[in-house]
Amino acid sequence: MTAVTTVAGLDALAPTDRSAEGRERARSDRSGWSPDGLPDAVVRPDSVDQVQQVVRWAAAHRVPLVPRGAGTGLTGGAAAAPGQVVLDLSGLDAIESLDPGARTAVVQPGVILADLDRAAAAHGLRYVPDPGSVAIASIGGTIATNAGGLRCARHGGTREAVAGLDVVLADGSLLRTGTSGARSVTGYDLTSLFVGSEGTLGVVVRATVRLQPLPVATATVTALFPDVATAAHAVATVLAAGPVPPTLELLDHATLAAVDPALADRGGAFLLVQTEGAPALAEATALAGLLRGTALEVDVTDDPVRAERLLATRRDALPAVQRHGRVLIEDVSVPPAALAEAITGIEAIADRTGVRVFTFAHAGAGVIHPLVLTDDGEITPRVRETVDAIVALALRLGGTLTGEHGIGALKRHWLPDELDPVARTTLHRIKAALDPAGVLNPGKAI
Amino acid sequence: MTAVTTVAGLDALAPTDRSAEGRERARSDRSGWSPDGLPDAVVRPDSVDQVQQVVRWAAAHRVPLVPRGAGTGLTGGAAAAPGQVVLDLSGLDAIESLDPGARTAVVQPGVILADLDRAAAAHGLRYVPDPGSVAIASIGGTIATNAGGLRCARHGGTREAVAGLDVVLADGSLLRTGTSGARSVTGYDLTSLFVGSEGTLGVVVRATVRLQPLPVATATVTALFPDVATAAHAVATVLAAGPVPPTLELLDHATLAAVDPALADRGGAFLLVQTEGAPALAEATALAGLLRGTALEVDVTDDPVRAERLLATRRDALPAVQRHGRVLIEDVSVPPAALAEAITGIEAIADRTGVRVFTFAHAGAGVIHPLVLTDDGEITPRVRETVDAIVALALRLGGTLTGEHGIGALKRHWLPDELDPVARTTLHRIKAALDPAGVLNPGKAI
Ligand SMILES: Cc1cc2nc3c(=O)[nH]c(=O)nc-3n(C[C@H](O)[C@H](O)[C@H](O)COP(=O)(O)OP(=O)(O)OC[C@H]3O[C@@H](n4cnc5c(N)ncnc54)[C@H](O)[C@@H]3O)c2cc1C
Ligand SMILES: Cc1cc2nc3c(=O)[nH]c(=O)nc-3n(C[C@H](O)[C@H](O)[C@H](O)COP(=O)(O)OP(=O)(O)OC[C@H]3O[C@@H](n4cnc5c(N)ncnc54)[C@H](O)[C@@H]3O)c2cc1C
Repeated sequence: MTAVTTVAGLDALAPTDRSAEGRERARSDRSGWSPDGLPDAVVRPDSVDQVQQVVRWAAAHRVPLVPRGAGTGLTGGAAAAPGQVVLDLSGLDAIESLDPGARTAVVQPGVILADLDRAAAAHGLRYVPDPGSVAIASIGGTIATNAGGLRCARHGGTREAVAGLDVVLADGSLLRTGTSGARSVTGYDLTSLFVGSEGTLGVVVRATVRLQPLPVATATVTALFPDVATAAHAVATVLAAGPVPPTLELLDHATLAAVDPALADRGGAFLLVQTEGAPALAEATALAGLLRGTALEVDVTDDPVRAERLLATRRDALPAVQRHGRVLIEDVSVPPAALAEAITGIEAIADRTGVRVFTFAHAGAGVIHPLVLTDDGEITPRVRETVDAIVALALRLGGTLTGEHGIGALKRHWLPDELDPVARTTLHRIKAALDPAGVLNPGKAI
Repeated sequence: MTAVTTVAGLDALAPTDRSAEGRERARSDRSGWSPDGLPDAVVRPDSVDQVQQVVRWAAAHRVPLVPRGAGTGLTGGAAAAPGQVVLDLSGLDAIESLDPGARTAVVQPGVILADLDRAAAAHGLRYVPDPGSVAIASIGGTIATNAGGLRCARHGGTREAVAGLDVVLADGSLLRTGTSGARSVTGYDLTSLFVGSEGTLGVVVRATVRLQPLPVATATVTALFPDVATAAHAVATVLAAGPVPPTLELLDHATLAAVDPALADRGGAFLLVQTEGAPALAEATALAGLLRGTALEVDVTDDPVRAERLLATRRDALPAVQRHGRVLIEDVSVPPAALAEAITGIEAIADRTGVRVFTFAHAGAGVIHPLVLTDDGEITPRVRETVDAIVALALRLGGTLTGEHGIGALKRHWLPDELDPVARTTLHRIKAALDPAGVLNPGKAI
């Protein structure tokens, strides 16, 4: 058990858990990775005021704080080490208000995305960002990672859905950014600066988010292809044909076998396309026509129940693969037009290294998740070679090492491959300007 | 004539104009405002390298630089004073590449928006941001102000159209932000930080911008209302009926009289709605039906030539009003659902103060431009009272003092009304982190 000397005085400020079990539960995230040892304590404030007091306390005592939402992150962003205190925001979980006329909601950070979406649906609205983890991830965590998801290619990700934030800064002061829904260019775009900052610049304690009308209709096309290269080229055809469809998901054969073995017996890759609005069915039918050229099977439905079932299958991809063994979850992204080259390139890398890779993609956004099977958790040289080659390929294609999961702790070693010294220095200057003592989530993101 | 002692050494680095005429041309923008006296010089680099050298020179000699695009700004952002040097980016005006497959273009800052849009149109694409000044404004200036325009409510403004930037920082180093079109969450969102920073954090020397497919069809509804209150309520009806239309513009009677006196004789306010895509005409017809309840006249067209003529009329609103006298160009913004309350409130303010106000709005985005007539350029107490009351009203409705034109020099005195000390301190910390010597556009934006 780790020493808990650093937490003196904390208990008086907010509910604090120093039990081994509590600290064990808060030491990692869904990447499965955590540093050796346990964090010193888990503090779970009940109010914004308590958050401010905790941050002030941490600043005064130079105790590193690790903000934590629902712990569903995939890069160790919320992982905490000895000497650190976890700042658990899950207790701040109220939808404070929802204004159907303004199409906005004011929410606390611990609200689970699906709960907000359900509350919005009661008014014919939806919260657009829908990562695969929509049923378990928190608003605060998704803001801190600028989460994407299945709808973000057309409708934008978390950044586009956030109108304004309340953020507790590293000195404990409370910053309000943005507006309650108005377009604004007053000052620098602080909202966008905090979105995606992974808890390193401030603690999100409240957000005003935009809601969108539910589409009047949706239609869904599914298509089975002989192999992933053909499916990826079909994506290119769809993208060239017009505006990007709201949802365009691709699963390779390995992933398909994990989520739906029967389907995997009949084909080598799967595509799921969703269209929206009054012409949804007509658009879907037209897209199905495009896909029929190369697909083995194509199906179109405008039945929302069946569509939801198909989406659920897709959302299950990550946990389904994880049941096959421990994987490194990569998250590269390329310009959508380069998707086919990236997908076939990843296949070639796996063939070369002989490491098993499960690949699926938010294809419309160019975000690709190659899940690289480890040797029972061990990262062998071949596994390392595989992931390094995948990242290098994405960068060569004009892409990035993280399309939506963030850098966290696990992707930092690749930062110099993507960002030159000027860019890295600029990030550190901003960090130093807002958190000079380095209290907030040190060692993450940048 | 001002002393030009500060410019020693500059001429060797890039083409430098020290003539009185050259400096006179570069001292102001379309706000008509400028400080007393002329800037010391106008330097017009031919290359990114020259920009870097000029910035290094300025940093070494502590000479304030004022970046300048096309000078069409409306807040004095590009206005320059004695002791300052204008850094004119209009010479960097190449479209370096345009990739129709990737739907991106790499452009230099001096490219005029309409030229990029035309180049895109040759490939069935468009550049979405379309401020009224689309024919005269530069990419760099619109990035520096995060310009909005007629299409931004549905499709986003400049920020959403920019994938990555090359920025010369205050120490002369060259920063690359973002990607060449991939979704990325690597590091903080530096692209969004520089978009809208009004030349105070860095000089934009290159941008990768996203292009969108041209809509397969558009349709346009125009409607004439008895008065602006009725028109504003009709906007609320349109907004409540579904997703925000791509274009939704409102003109009050005074503005209408300036742009089209014949039309103004028949009604008191004008609405222009544009829909896009395959169902454009059906959607427009449905919206027309909604408007018929309260409008005097409603017209629907899917003729693109007629639509372009109507849009041109709307784009002419500002210059048409300016022909009536010198105005203060306000740019408040409110949550779109509060538009009717804002518009009627502005009317009431003008009635009370007896000052003439011409109001038009990008209604779908909640951005309102009340043009407040001065006393032949003089800002009398009544004029001051009018603009102050308009800003206060917008803030009370959850809005902002600038929806798209920026703070520049002219709106800085209102900053404390919108941003509390924590927010202002945060802006200044970021400025100090990136431009510690205060070389870039001092006295603007924050
Ligand atoms: C099955 C599955 C599917 C997924 N699918 C997707 C997907 O499609 N798209 C996608 O983008 N992601 C996806 N993810 C990743 C994950 O859900 C997201 O990263 C999510 O944003 C994490 O939210 P969280 O509340 O769990 O945050 P946590 O994991 O608790 O924290 C994530 C990061 O945010 C910081 N943080 C948390 N709360 C705050 C706060 N209030 N203020 C400041 N910083 C804070 C933490 O310090 C950490 O750096 C998936 C994860 C799983 C398990
Ligand atoms: C008739 C008319 C209609 C308009 N309609 C709209 C509208 O609908 N929506 C809207 O948003 N605006 C509108 N505007 C305002 C104006 O066109 C925009 O603000 C535009 O973005 C200014 O571009 P510019 O190239 O002229 O920039 P400038 O006026 O030259 O500069 C504007 C600001 O950007 C900075 N800057 C310029 N270039 C760079 C660079 N390369 N790097 C860093 N900083 C730079 C300057 O220092 C200054 O602070 C309108 C203006 C007019 C005259």
